[in-house]
Amino acid sequence: MKDVIINPDEDIVDLERNGYKLIQKKEGFRFGMDAVLLSGFANVSEGEKTIDLGTGTGIIPILLKAKTEGTDFIGLEIQEESVELAKRNVEMNELSDFIEIKQGDIKEASNNFGAATFDVVVTNPPYMTEDGGITNPNDAKAIARHEIKCNLEDVIRESAKLLKPMGRFYMVHRPRRMPDLIELMRKYGIEPKVIRMVHPFAEKPANMVLIEGVRGGRAMTVVEKPLIVYKEPDIYTDEIYDIYGF
Amino acid sequence: MKDVIINPDEDIVDLERNGYKLIQKKEGFRFGMDAVLLSGFANVSEGEKTIDLGTGTGIIPILLKAKTEGTDFIGLEIQEESVELAKRNVEMNELSDFIEIKQGDIKEASNNFGAATFDVVVTNPPYMTEDGGITNPNDAKAIARHEIKCNLEDVIRESAKLLKPMGRFYMVHRPRRMPDLIELMRKYGIEPKVIRMVHPFAEKPANMVLIEGVRGGRAMTVVEKPLIVYKEPDIYTDEIYDIYGF
Repeated sequence: MKDVIINPDEDIVDLERNGYKLIQKKEGFRFGMDAVLLSGFANVSEGEKTIDLGTGTGIIPILLKAKTEGTDFIGLEIQEESVELAKRNVEMNELSDFIEIKQGDIKEASNNFGAATFDVVVTNPPYMTEDGGITNPNDAKAIARHEIKCNLEDVIRESAKLLKPMGRFYMVHRPRRMPDLIELMRKYGIEPKVIRMVHPFAEKPANMVLIEGVRGGRAMTVVEKPLIVYKEPDIYTDEIYDIYGF
Repeated sequence: MKDVIINPDEDIVDLERNGYKLIQKKEGFRFGMDAVLLSGFANVSEGEKTIDLGTGTGIIPILLKAKTEGTDFIGLEIQEESVELAKRNVEMNELSDFIEIKQGDIKEASNNFGAATFDVVVTNPPYMTEDGGITNPNDAKAIARHEIKCNLEDVIRESAKLLKPMGRFYMVHRPRRMPDLIELMRKYGIEPKVIRMVHPFAEKPANMVLIEGVRGGRAMTVVEKPLIVYKEPDIYTDEIYDIYGF
C-alpha cells in the first residue's frame, strides 16, 4: 500500500480483496453492489486485454485484478475529477503495472483505442435516461447516473467496435431496460449469451441484470440461476458474502 | 361432464380445476408444465376475447376458463387430428359456450379472424427450430415441437396483427431463444412488459421463460421473482402446487 493524498471530502474503504482499498468522495457517486457483482460475473483470462467503460473511481478494474487472472486493464473515464481519483486508487494499491486510467469520452473510445483491440469490455453505465429528473447536468453524480454524456446505444456501439471478434462484453443494468440491452446488443453484433437476474430477495422482482455477450457469437442464451442478495433483512446470502470476499 | 368417445390410443387426466378433465393421445404430444404455467401466468378479464395459437388438445383455453374470468376463447390448431380431439375435450367439459376450436394455419390467422380483434393472445408455440433433428416432419408430435408449420416470427407477427391496441400477448418459450423473443416482439410492436424465469431448482439455470407483452405499450419491463419448480427432488414448491390446483 503506497501513501497517497486523501482529501478532506474523501474517505477510504477496504475492498476485502488482496488488501486493496478504495478512496471515494464522501458526497459523490460511491460504488455500489452493481460494480461488485459485475466484477464477480465477468471472466478475464491470463493475457487478455480489458477495458472498463466509465470506470469512475476505478473500482471495477481493481476488483477484476484481484479476482481474475487479467493483468492488462484500461479504465476509461470522462470526468476529470474521477480520473484523478481513480489514478490515486491505482497508485495507492500499487497496481500501476496492471491498470491504466485514461480520460476520454466513451463515444470516441474506438477512435482513440482502435477497433477490435480488446478481448473484454466491462461496463456499469449510467442507468437512467437523460430526462429522469436531473437537477444539475454538470454534477458528477448526475453524469455517473444519467445518460448525459453517453446513452446505452453509444456504450454498446463502442463496445462492439472495441471488441475483437469473439471478444466478450459484460454489463450490469436495470431489468426495466432489458429489451433495450438485448435489442442494441444484437443491432451491433454482440450476441447475448449469459443472463443473470439479481433479486434483492427470492420473493422480489429483479433489480439488476448481469449480461454477457460475445461479439459475433452464435445465438444460444443461458439464463443462470437467480442471484439472491438477502436471505433475510440485513443478512446476505452465502453467495453475496462470497462475491464480496468477507 | 358429458360422455364423449375415448379411443383406445387415448387416456384421460384430471386437470384439478373445476372438475375439468383432458383426453390425450397416449403416444402423442402430451401437455406439459409449460402449458400449465402459461395458463397461470396469463390474465384474462371479464368480457375479453382471447385466442390460443396452436392449441393442441385445447388445454390452455380450458385452464384459462377455469382460472380467469374470461368466457370467450378461440383455440386455433392446424392439425386435423388435434382439432378433433380438442373439440371432444371442449364438449366433454361442457365448455362449448365459452371455447371454440378452429382448424387453421397460424400464418393465416389475422386474415381469417381479422386484424385487431383480440384482447389477449396466448401461445405455447413449437420451441425447436426446424433443423433440430426431425425424423418425420409429418408426425403430429414433431409439428407440435418443431418450427415446421410456422416459426417464432410467424407466431409473433400474427399475434401483433390479431391484438387490439394495448392488447396483451402471453407466451412460454425456452430461455435460449429469449433474445429472439424480445427482438421479434419489438419488431412487430409488442413491448415486453413482464418476464418471469422458470427454474427447475433454485440453483439451476432457467428452463422456461414466461413473457407478457403489450401491443403498443411503452418500454418498461419488470422481471418478476423467479418461479422455482421443485424445492427438493420430486417435491414441488408451494407455488407450483398452487398453480396446479392440487
